[in-house]
Amino acid sequence: MTTGMRRRMGVEERRQQLIGVALELFSHRSPDDVSIDEIASAAGISRPLVYHYFPGKLSLYEAALKRAADELAERFVEPHEGPLGARLLRVTGRFLGFVDEHGPGFSALMRGGPAVSAGGACSRDTVSTTNALIDSVRQAAYVQILAHLGVTAPPARLELVVRSWISLAESTALIWLDGRRIPRAELELQLVHDFAALAAVSAAYDDEMALLLGRILADEPSDGPFADLLGRLSALAPAAVLP
Amino acid sequence: MTTGMRRRMGVEERRQQLIGVALELFSHRSPDDVSIDEIASAAGISRPLVYHYFPGKLSLYEAALKRAADELAERFVEPHEGPLGARLLRVTGRFLGFVDEHGPGFSALMRGGPAVSAGGACSRDTVSTTNALIDSVRQAAYVQILAHLGVTAPPARLELVVRSWISLAESTALIWLDGRRIPRAELELQLVHDFAALAAVSAAYDDEMALLLGRILADEPSDGPFADLLGRLSALAPAAVLP
Repeated sequence: MTTGMRRRMGVEERRQQLIGVALELFSHRSPDDVSIDEIASAAGISRPLVYHYFPGKLSLYEAALKRAADELAERFVEPHEGPLGARLLRVTGRFLGFVDEHGPGFSALMRGGPAVSAGGACSRDTVSTTNALIDSVRQAAYVQILAHLGVTAPPARLELVVRSWISLAESTALIWLDGRRIPRAELELQLVHDFAALAAVSAAYDDEMALLLGRILADEPSDGPFADLLGRLSALAPAAVLP
Repeated sequence: MTTGMRRRMGVEERRQQLIGVALELFSHRSPDDVSIDEIASAAGISRPLVYHYFPGKLSLYEAALKRAADELAERFVEPHEGPLGARLLRVTGRFLGFVDEHGPGFSALMRGGPAVSAGGACSRDTVSTTNALIDSVRQAAYVQILAHLGVTAPPARLELVVRSWISLAESTALIWLDGRRIPRAELELQLVHDFAALAAVSAAYDDEMALLLGRILADEPSDGPFADLLGRLSALAPAAVLP
């Protein structure tokens, strides 16, 4: 319901407004629970008018997802300045902020639930579309991280570390959303530390990775997240198990 | 085509044979590329007879998936004897063996592609069924690990470490399957080290986790995977970044 003046929107403007309204609704409740009627009501237009702009809930969901994916990919962009640990911490913070804002929708999507449907059947094309979008966001994150590391042709072990960490960030966010039992700020720092830890494990058994890690750590300040972790781990390691 | 004697199978025996044949085919090629004709041919029976036992490819796929899930969950079972690092290494080895044997099918399934269909539409129920199966396998792995750790009421941070590591093992396996550019034995050891690394990161900032990690490491032999990693990491840590 809108009160006051209502001006006429252009087609593209109206489409963008509907996408925004839909994204807001799909983010805060499981997309399956959101009806076209609610979207129409939240946008202050009639149900038939929604169908004038989008053939159905599925296409509106896909458009909302596309906007969310673009927004998330934008958050990965970080200036190539200063220590890597601090850069990764800022990006991770923005990622978890996104997850926080879009919680239920993010969960539904990542739990294989892009099953927004108008009945019992889901479109094969929708599954492909949503999977392709998720993959494109993962790829954007991967490309950004490699650029920050200054690597153009990543060896297999580096690719594994970066891609598996991106997946770890996703699953960590999903597990966190289920109850939010850990403060978000702690989680941000932990994910940055996890990256260092996975890289260190790889470096412990591979010279190429050891060189790369050495180069990263050499530029880290002693008050950065990586140095802090190293100091704490050294204090933690029981002398008993060291050979 | 079968030659020689053909004896009559009972209904359940024939169903089990078809499931085995289907799992074999679904494992080695993307399930979407496997036809009922091929399954019939590999089982040595006619296409109509396949339909006598299963209403369609979808139900046969679900049955094959169920068998694979049971088989995988069985591989998680490990005697509660000896150091934890060695136990985890054996289980991880069996997990990657499973992934190796069922490569293309595992990839298709985990990449959100349980889209086996008979036309353009996928069943909403199939998505739910496959997601529930995947979740049950994850839960089996989680329960096994907690049992080995001797923990019945895991704190939030331990739950996060264990569940996120299980997800890391999945994504590491998927990335590895895409080209297999790293020896499998190296990957097995790396995943065990990753577990220790994620636990150590958590322990570095939480006393409860530090106590738990200390208890685990206290029982580790100096020639076990955890001690080996610690020794190598200590050698790797550049003195420069230590406070």
